[in-house]
Formats: sequence, C-alpha cells, structure tokens
Amino acid sequence: MLLLRRVCFLLPSPSPRAPLAKPLPLLLRLPRTLPSAARALASMAAPAAPAGGTAAMSRDAFRAAVTNTLERRLFFVPSFKIYGGVAGLYDYGPPGCAVKANVLAFWRQHFVLEEGMLEVDCPCVTPEVVLKASGHVDKFTDLMVKDEKTGNCYRADHLLKDFCKDKLEKDQTLSPEQAEEYNKILAILDDLSAEQLGAKIKEYGIVAPDTKNPLSDPYPFNLMFQTSIGPSGLSPGYMRPETAQGIFVNFKDLYYYNGNKLPFAAAQIGQAFRNEISPRQGLLRVREFTLAEIEHFVDPEDKSHPKFGDVSDLEFLMFPREDQMAGRSATRLKLGNAVSEGTVNNETLGYFIGRVYLFLTQLGIDKDRLRFRQHLPNEMAHYAADCWDAEIECSYGWIECVGIADRSAYDLRAHSDKSGEKLEAHEKFAEPREVEKLVITPSKKELGLAFKGNQRMVLEALEAMGETEALDMKAKLESKGEVEFKVCTLGKDVTIKKSMVSINIEKKKEHQRKFTPSVIEPSFGIGRIIYCLFEHCFFQRPGKAEDEQLNVFGFPPLVAPIKCTVFPLVKLEKFEVVAKKISKALTAAGISHIIDMTGNTIGKRYARTDELGVPLAITVDNTTSVTVRDRDSKDQIRVEVDEVASVVKEVMDGQSTWADIMWRYPTHTASAAEDEAEP
Amino acid sequence: MLLLRRVCFLLPSPSPRAPLAKPLPLLLRLPRTLPSAARALASMAAPAAPAGGTAAMSRDAFRAAVTNTLERRLFFVPSFKIYGGVAGLYDYGPPGCAVKANVLAFWRQHFVLEEGMLEVDCPCVTPEVVLKASGHVDKFTDLMVKDEKTGNCYRADHLLKDFCKDKLEKDQTLSPEQAEEYNKILAILDDLSAEQLGAKIKEYGIVAPDTKNPLSDPYPFNLMFQTSIGPSGLSPGYMRPETAQGIFVNFKDLYYYNGNKLPFAAAQIGQAFRNEISPRQGLLRVREFTLAEIEHFVDPEDKSHPKFGDVSDLEFLMFPREDQMAGRSATRLKLGNAVSEGTVNNETLGYFIGRVYLFLTQLGIDKDRLRFRQHLPNEMAHYAADCWDAEIECSYGWIECVGIADRSAYDLRAHSDKSGEKLEAHEKFAEPREVEKLVITPSKKELGLAFKGNQRMVLEALEAMGETEALDMKAKLESKGEVEFKVCTLGKDVTIKKSMVSINIEKKKEHQRKFTPSVIEPSFGIGRIIYCLFEHCFFQRPGKAEDEQLNVFGFPPLVAPIKCTVFPLVKLEKFEVVAKKISKALTAAGISHIIDMTGNTIGKRYARTDELGVPLAITVDNTTSVTVRDRDSKDQIRVEVDEVASVVKEVMDGQSTWADIMWRYPTHTASAAEDEAEP
Repeated sequence: MLLLRRVCFLLPSPSPRAPLAKPLPLLLRLPRTLPSAARALASMAAPAAPAGGTAAMSRDAFRAAVTNTLERRLFFVPSFKIYGGVAGLYDYGPPGCAVKANVLAFWRQHFVLEEGMLEVDCPCVTPEVVLKASGHVDKFTDLMVKDEKTGNCYRADHLLKDFCKDKLEKDQTLSPEQAEEYNKILAILDDLSAEQLGAKIKEYGIVAPDTKNPLSDPYPFNLMFQTSIGPSGLSPGYMRPETAQGIFVNFKDLYYYNGNKLPFAAAQIGQAFRNEISPRQGLLRVREFTLAEIEHFVDPEDKSHPKFGDVSDLEFLMFPREDQMAGRSATRLKLGNAVSEGTVNNETLGYFIGRVYLFLTQLGIDKDRLRFRQHLPNEMAHYAADCWDAEIECSYGWIECVGIADRSAYDLRAHSDKSGEKLEAHEKFAEPREVEKLVITPSKKELGLAFKGNQRMVLEALEAMGETEALDMKAKLESKGEVEFKVCTLGKDVTIKKSMVSINIEKKKEHQRKFTPSVIEPSFGIGRIIYCLFEHCFFQRPGKAEDEQLNVFGFPPLVAPIKCTVFPLVKLEKFEVVAKKISKALTAAGISHIIDMTGNTIGKRYARTDELGVPLAITVDNTTSVTVRDRDSKDQIRVEVDEVASVVKEVMDGQSTWADIMWRYPTHTASAAEDEAEP
Repeated sequence: MLLLRRVCFLLPSPSPRAPLAKPLPLLLRLPRTLPSAARALASMAAPAAPAGGTAAMSRDAFRAAVTNTLERRLFFVPSFKIYGGVAGLYDYGPPGCAVKANVLAFWRQHFVLEEGMLEVDCPCVTPEVVLKASGHVDKFTDLMVKDEKTGNCYRADHLLKDFCKDKLEKDQTLSPEQAEEYNKILAILDDLSAEQLGAKIKEYGIVAPDTKNPLSDPYPFNLMFQTSIGPSGLSPGYMRPETAQGIFVNFKDLYYYNGNKLPFAAAQIGQAFRNEISPRQGLLRVREFTLAEIEHFVDPEDKSHPKFGDVSDLEFLMFPREDQMAGRSATRLKLGNAVSEGTVNNETLGYFIGRVYLFLTQLGIDKDRLRFRQHLPNEMAHYAADCWDAEIECSYGWIECVGIADRSAYDLRAHSDKSGEKLEAHEKFAEPREVEKLVITPSKKELGLAFKGNQRMVLEALEAMGETEALDMKAKLESKGEVEFKVCTLGKDVTIKKSMVSINIEKKKEHQRKFTPSVIEPSFGIGRIIYCLFEHCFFQRPGKAEDEQLNVFGFPPLVAPIKCTVFPLVKLEKFEVVAKKISKALTAAGISHIIDMTGNTIGKRYARTDELGVPLAITVDNTTSVTVRDRDSKDQIRVEVDEVASVVKEVMDGQSTWADIMWRYPTHTASAAEDEAEP
C-alpha cells in the first residue's frame, strides 16, 4: 500500500510520489461552470482543454473558495476547534458525514457485494508483534530534524524541498547551474538518505523556519501512534497504520470460510492512524483517516480474472513507467491492450484498475483529471510484482488516492514466519502427479549421541537445507564419509557423518500442491477521494449582485448529502401542510431531504441548497402541484403533489436523468419572487 | 453515558450495574425453538414462561453452543489469533460484519434520518485538554491491585466479588451471618472506596488467583489508551473513551447549522476505546468497541417532545428506582403513564426510551428479555436529571446495552469553562421583556490603584458574584463603607471600598434569553446489542442422527447477514445456468446472497445456511420453477424462475411475511434427496 508508504525492505527509501512526475502548472484549469451533462460532453470532446468559457482562476483562490464553502457549510471543520484545534485532525460535519456514508455505501455495493468479497472488521489497537512482522515497527518512519533550542520538529525533506522551491521561484540572481542543482534535488528528494539530507541542509545553511535556530541532524521518527495494551505497561501496541494486517492474520480462517478455494478477496473499511511530523495539505495528509482496503488472494501461477472482459474495453489515462522515465505525459490506453501488451502485469491487477476507474468516475471524479500511474522501480517494494496508483488532479497537484499493488506472497510469508502458523493454500490435483522429491532423513539417535543438547538445532538445520546444498552434502558424504556443516543457530560448523543423515531423491505421488497465495491489494484513501470529489464538483456562477459569485457543489445524486429540499414559497399554513405531506412521502421512499420553513427568500434558500450540493428543490407554491428545480441547469418543471416523491426517487436512483424528466412535465418559469439570484 | 461508566464527579463511585438488581437464576430460559411468528405469539401470551416444549439447558452449555457456532461460522473470532490473541479484542468475520453493517444502517435510518439528526464523524485521537474538561483524565478509572511478585494486574472489585461468590456457592460450612456479610458486600461492591476494598481484601486474605502471591493495595488505573500527538512527545492524547465529546466541542457550529434553533440532535457512530484491566465476558466487555451516540440538545425549561404521542401507548418492562429499592421486579408500564406520573423525568427522555424500545425489538431482541432500568441515586452523576438503561437479558445476566440519560447542562458547561468559548443557546422573545437585573460595575482605576498586579483577579471575582453575595456587599458598603472580600484566585481576603465598585438593581429590556441547553443522551453499545441479538436469535432443533442438534440463527430479514442462498439441487449445467440467472436478478434487486455450487448434499447446505441465519434458500431443481425454503418453519413453496427474485425481495423488505407468501404459491414437499436432516 504505497498510498500509505508501505515500507519497502531492501530498497533504500520508497518514495510516495513519482520523482519524475511532471510538476503542476501554477494555474489550474478552472472548475467547469456547465451543468454536468454538458460538462461530460465537453470533456469528452476536448479532454485536456478547459471546458466552458470561463477565465482561469488561480489555484490558491480556487482552493480558498472551495475550502471556505466546505467549512462554512460544515462539510468539515478542524477538530477540537474550541481548544485551538490539532493539526491533521478534522471532523466531518453533517453534510460531509453524509457524503462519506454515501461513498462508503457505494464502495460496499461496487466491491464487496458485486464481487462477493468477505468483509471483516478488526480493531485499531494492534499488538507490537503484528507490526513487527509487517515491518512497520522498524521501517514506517519519516526523517525528522529538531530545532536545537525549542525542540520543534520538522520533516527534513519538507525543509529541503521548501528551500529549493523558494530559491527557484523567488531568487532572481540564480545561475543556470544553481537552478539545475535545485531542480535535481527536487527530483531525487525521496531517495535521499538521512546522511545525504543532513549534508544538504548543512550545505545550504537551512535553519528552523519559525525561529532561525540551527537544526539537529535528520533521524527517523516512527509514524505510528504508540500506546500500551492492558495495565502492566509491558505490552506495547500501536494504532494500526493500515487495515490490511487485520486481513492477513485472518487468512487461514477466511480461506476456510471460502471453502478452501482461491481466488477470493477480503475487504475492510476502517480508521487508520499516522502520527505525521507536521501535517499539511488539509484533508489530504491527516493523522487519522478512513481506509477501505481489499486483499485479493490468488494463485501466483494463475492471475487471470474471469470478469476481465467486463472492463477490457475501458479506455482512460494511464501513465506507464516508461513514459514517466522518458518525460512523456500520460496517454489514453485501452485497458485490454495494456494487459495484453504487458504494460500491466496481469489480468487481475488490470481488472481492479478497471473497477477502480468505474468506481471513481461514477462517484463524480472528472475522468480527465484521473490517471493511473505505474510505480517506478525505485518506488516499488522489492517483492511487488507491479503497482499502479489512481491519481486525481486537484489544486494540490496529482494526488495518490488509490494504490493498486500486486504484492506477491510477501505479507502472508512475513506473518507465517513470525507466527509459525502456515498461511498457505493448496490445489488438489484431479489426478495424482508423480514428482521427484528430495527427502532428508536425519537419524535422531546418531545426532543425539554426537551433539547432545545441540541435537535439535543441528536436526532443524539439516531439514531446512535447500536442494543444491543437500545434493552437495550427499555427494561429499558419499565420497569422504563426512562433511563440515554450518549451523546458524549454533553460530558454528559441526561435522556431519554419513550415519547421521540420509539424503535421497525419491519419486512420490503428489495429490496436491501447497503454496503461499499472491495478494493483489487495492487500497483506498477515502478522505482523499472525498476531498478531490469536493474540488471536482465545485463551481461558481454569477449572482445578481455585481461581482457576486454563487457557489455550487454539483454532486451526482449518488453522493449528494441531501437529495432534495422542500420549501413552502411563502409562509402559509396550507403550503406547510403540503410540504409536510411531501416530506412524508420522501421519507417513505427513503430519500434524504430537508424542509426549510424559515421564511427566507427563495433565492437565499436556493443559494444555501446549491452550496450543500442538493440536486433537486421542491417549492410548494400551490396545493395541487409544485415546482421541482434542477440545481445544475436551474430549470424548473411543474409536478403534481402526489407524484413528486416518485419523480425525485426516479432521478435519485438513476433510473431517469433530469433531461428525461424535463420532457415529461411542463416547464415552470421562475417569477421575480423565486428569482434565485436575490439572496 | 453510564454504559461506559461516564464519571460522576461528586458521588464517590458510580456503579455501572444496579447493586440491588435481582441476581440471575443459574438456569436460563431456553432459547425458543418456534419460528419467529409463533414465538412472538407465545411470548405475548406468557412473557415469563419458557415457550415451546423444550427442556431447560444450562446457561453455560447454551452460551458454549452459541459461541461455538459464532466462532466456527466466523461471525467473530479473537483478534490476532495466530499470535495468541489479545484479551478484549475481537474481529468480526464476514457474517458478523454484515450483521453489524445492517444494525448500523438501521440505526441511521431509525434515528438519524427519521429524526433529522445532524450526524458528525470526529477522530478517535483526542488531545488531553478535551478529556481533562470532560473529567476522564482525572476520574475514568478502575481500582487495580498488583501481584506483588509477578506484577500481574487484577481489578480489585472482581477479586472481592469472585471470593464472595465462591464462598456463597461452594462453602458448605458458611454460617448464616457469614452468608449475609458476603451478600451485603456483593450488593455494595460498586460503592466501596479504594481503602474499603483494600481492607476487605486483607481481611479475607485474598491473594493473586494465578500465583497465590500477596497483592498490593488497590489504586486507580486510568482506563484510557494513552498516546502522544505529533513528534515532540509534549502533546499527550488519548484514544476517545466515548464519541460524545466530539459532539459537545462542536455544539456552536451545529447550533448554527441548525439555524440557531433548539431542540436538535447530533449523532455519531464510531470506535471507542477502553483499556480494561482484565477483560471478561467475551464480546460484552472489550477494549475497543463501536458506539452510536445521540446528543439531543433541548431548552431546560421545555423538555416536551412534539412526537411523544407516537410512542406514549407503548407498554413494556420498566424497572423504576423505587421498585428496585423495594426488592420488587420489573413490571410492564405504559410509557405515557410513566411520563405523566413522573416516573420518567420528562417527555423527551420518554420519547427516546420508546424509540430505543422500537429499535431493539425491530432488530430482533426478545421483548420479554428487555427492560428499562432506572438508575439508583448512587449510580447517577450528581448533575443528571434522570437516567435509564435498556438492559437485555442474556446468558451473562441483564446487560446494559443502551444508556439514556438526561445529563442537564453539565457537558456543555464543562467545555465552556475549560475552553472559554461560550456554548449556549438563545431564545428570542416575541416582545422584549422588562427584567430586573443586577449590575456590578467595578472601577478599574480604583482597583488598579489599590491592588496593582492583582487587579484583574479582584475584578473578575467581583464580576462573578452571585446575586445574594452582591446584595450583601452592597448593604455592607452602604452601611460601613468597606467590606472584606474573599478572592479565591488570590487565596486571601481583600478589602473592598465603596469607591471600587457600584452594585445596582436595574430595570432592563431584554430581547432574548441566553442559556446552556440540557442534553439528553441515548448511547448505544453496538457490540453488546449484537451479542445479545445472537443469543436471542439462536435456537437448536433435532437433526436426523440420534442426539444431533442443528443450530439455527433465526435473524429477522433486517439483520440477516445474507438474505438468501441459491443452490442447484444436483451438479448439472442447466441448473447452474438457472442459478446464475437468479443470482443476477437478486443482485439487481439489491439482495445479498450466495450461490453454493459445491455439490454437497442439500441437507448439509441447509444446515450451513441455517447456521448463518439465512432466511430463505432457493433450490434449483428445474429449469422453469424452483423451490423456496423458509429457515424457521422449513416449509417450501414452488415459484417460477422469473418471479423468484421479486418474491424474495418482498419478504426481505418486510412488505410480505412468509405466511403471506405461503398462501400464494404451491407448497413443495421435500423429497428424500432434499431432506435437510441428512447432513
């Protein structure tokens, strides 16, 4: 799960982002102002060009507009605000919470139910031994420097990055050589060791940004929140940094539950924790977040997928390793070709890439700002077969939101080794197969006589020999009668005689094959996806007043926090009665909605509803029929009171689009009183 | 939230369970063997008697049968089992996870959506200041003793309780006086101080159960998992022990979001953590659990509820304080009467009691093993107005699963005081009201001259005077010209002269009233509810083999983890084609189901399906029509292939019952091959 910087064990320093990925232009394309249907058409026609006719808006201004709306409408707020907040912790308020619930429900539908996955729910508190086995205790670190006087902590790579960027952007006196050097550092930043980082910080005279005090040398800081389980203080534990380990440790039971058959996938949605040194980037890099992870276990010798045909015709932006290294941009590829040509390692990995694409775009992620980027060799763990990130472009750049990795047998083996519990699968042969097998049979009696208390260690070492080593020993024993043999657990060589062990190649009938399954892991950072969704759905349109810009979240019905609002046009009891009747019908139809009886102007109410991303608004201006207004087009139609709930349900369930509905009902022209540009 | 031992601040030691509640009989009523409809009738007729004709089964044997089925079928398993597990941590496997998701979805529907609550989602990691304000840092403790040699820890009250119970159950030589003493200790156990507990442990010579070593004196152990936020090690934090605080600290924003209007409710579902000293009782007392909490904010002067009429006719088992103290049992009361007669403090509290009753019984909790028990005075926090627990009877006794408390203004005041942020509501008057108001106006100049650096403390103390104190000072200043005045923050008395302060009663026009809202808090322990549901839904029925007992979870469709299974009767391609077609139709209808193509006998497959609590099973024995089998009655009907998905949906959505369906379709008589008692 490189999304969360799953540790790579042999390569020096896994980089969470592609060092060679193209830097973002300072000006972002403006969020579109067209209603979604038109937007989809426009973007199909010209994927790379800004649609609509609006002028560019600076990235910072755009982000400020989005964030301001999000916080004002309580989509999210900094946690514990009345106490000054805590960096990297956020609360989802009511509309944010509803969006999140919708995203998770769709995830469950799209992955768990449709693919028949086994969902599990494991605790966040995790004993140390589990995270020792996974490597997190030793390697889940960032390099940190301390202000030598105040003790304030900073991420070493951030300071160096900020320094280089600042120089490149602001220093007018920079020579071309210096500029080249700073650019090079930015490119290799993620590969620098603690020593290299420290040397550069010294060389450039970088000091603590807040105090200008000198800095310590960089040293690793473990990013897990540590705690202690039970009262003794002797059982260290951590808040899990990912949900995946809970699945791996349950492999045996899940395999049994699945009738001892491969392939199968397990899934988990839950909180994960990362004690960031200095969180930045709002909702994108936080200390606690919701992950949704899938571990698809598969026979390493057969990674085909029966449903690959369902996604093989999809075509979308992919960014293979070779293109990144050659400095080319991402290109549209057909998924089927990417797999058949070997760009994507195997069908199962390809199938999940396709399913992730469908998931994200159905949520409302703009498909022209979504790409699948392959990990470069230096980003990938040594054991990984292949790895692709779904990256979404937002005002912070291209953000890794889903990691899809073929992690081979690494995780199951790590837990097998540490726990001593065999985490493997077997394939029963239809017919028994004859195989040649090396059989090592130590003589316990002889070993006991020769090695006494060390007998067990020698015996285990003999049994653990590989084929080459054993055949070599066999040859030597036959020629010389004895051989020197290194026993690691004893830390020395011992002399093995012919009588102590027999080594033979025997023909055996095998009825089954045992193996450690490979795991293909799609891992979703739910908060990141939601934040990008906020940005992709946000647009502004002019209000009535000069310079006034009205904010709209153009959420698709699937994720909209509230599907519909009901307003009486004016405060009249007969209208309120109708509004309540409609509300009852909406509740019965399972449509989340609000009634607004505040008596604010209709314009104000529409503006509020648009900021919350409510797709439809019902205005009660009559006791027999009402108007229904579409958020994106602002078009209105007139529908009978008794029919309105089912019309709303039809659009919300995706059975009809607004355009379909427009054909069936008379249009309603807004009167001055309803004019929404009069907040 | 006494469910989680919310700390009481003045009373010495809040007890989580009623000390006077009747002890459980050792033999429990047997779980019913009747199908649910018959069961409901039987229990209505004779609520206290065991229904059906089955013999009693010991409580331990029953629990073992349930737990064995739950673990074998992966409803839940001890977490990190391959590493030996961790006490008090459990994983939900696939069916358990599905039950949990169903319970939470229904909770959201029943409370959040139907009542228009504001749902929030706050982090688990919580800075110390928040839990200082709430009192958890200082008071969220259990008393612990340590084995003086090994350092093993035990809950002091558990050891004393076990000792007394053991004596009462096993010591044949016990005198009536001794028996009375042990019984008395069991009754007052929760009220004992550390000193009293320690004295009893010494007096009885209680030693460490595992080693017989002597024990330390009892001392408080804080039950929160502690951690550190950020890299400096200077910001202590905890894993939240409840979700409620996240709502309280957001009160101001939520009140604004609600249009500055009361009442409104906020809700949160999430993980909570409690570092138990020595967890017992399986899923009932764990170190990490899911809570669903509601904070309903209301004007303390008006706790009526507009929808109380919807629940006032409900009648169920209630156990008021007086009845507990008089040694009577719980009785059936009409909720409307309980409120009007003052047994339940107010309508809003009563409304939630009714809604909780509906929630639990609709989930499948047996209404005869559900009671609402009022807290005794010594259980309740001093600030609480009233508090009722929904207790469910299971093999562990009556278990507190939902706490419903009127906590008055306590929580908001605590955070107001600590943060300095005013957490209050206001009521705008229709007409301004003339009120007499005490106005205290200190003279900064005079105070400055007299008290120099202490000026601010004196000024604040003057402004904070209550009415009586201020009027007393006014009188003394007028008669004597000066007065001694205690300033707590200075820790001494100062002399206040007439020139330093003016105190007057003034008539003022007020346009609004400001106040701290009361909060009514229903708090649900989701894991406990689910465990009790498992027990209430479990029953056994005879298999074909002698002495064989088949296990069934009789879940209602609402919570059943899988709604339906599809089997081909025999392994034939034409049947598999039909099975796949039906599966597709079920997916389209949103019905979670599994296809079982294993080729096991139909009896084995039914047995598996019953253990998972799947309500309906479709057997494909024909290409045009199939059989549908009801789990509880084992009755079968024959339905056309094209119709079967909609029939299943009808029953699962609750539009029809099995009995309705039985009328409409031909019954199917099981052939020998399908006989389910042949596993």
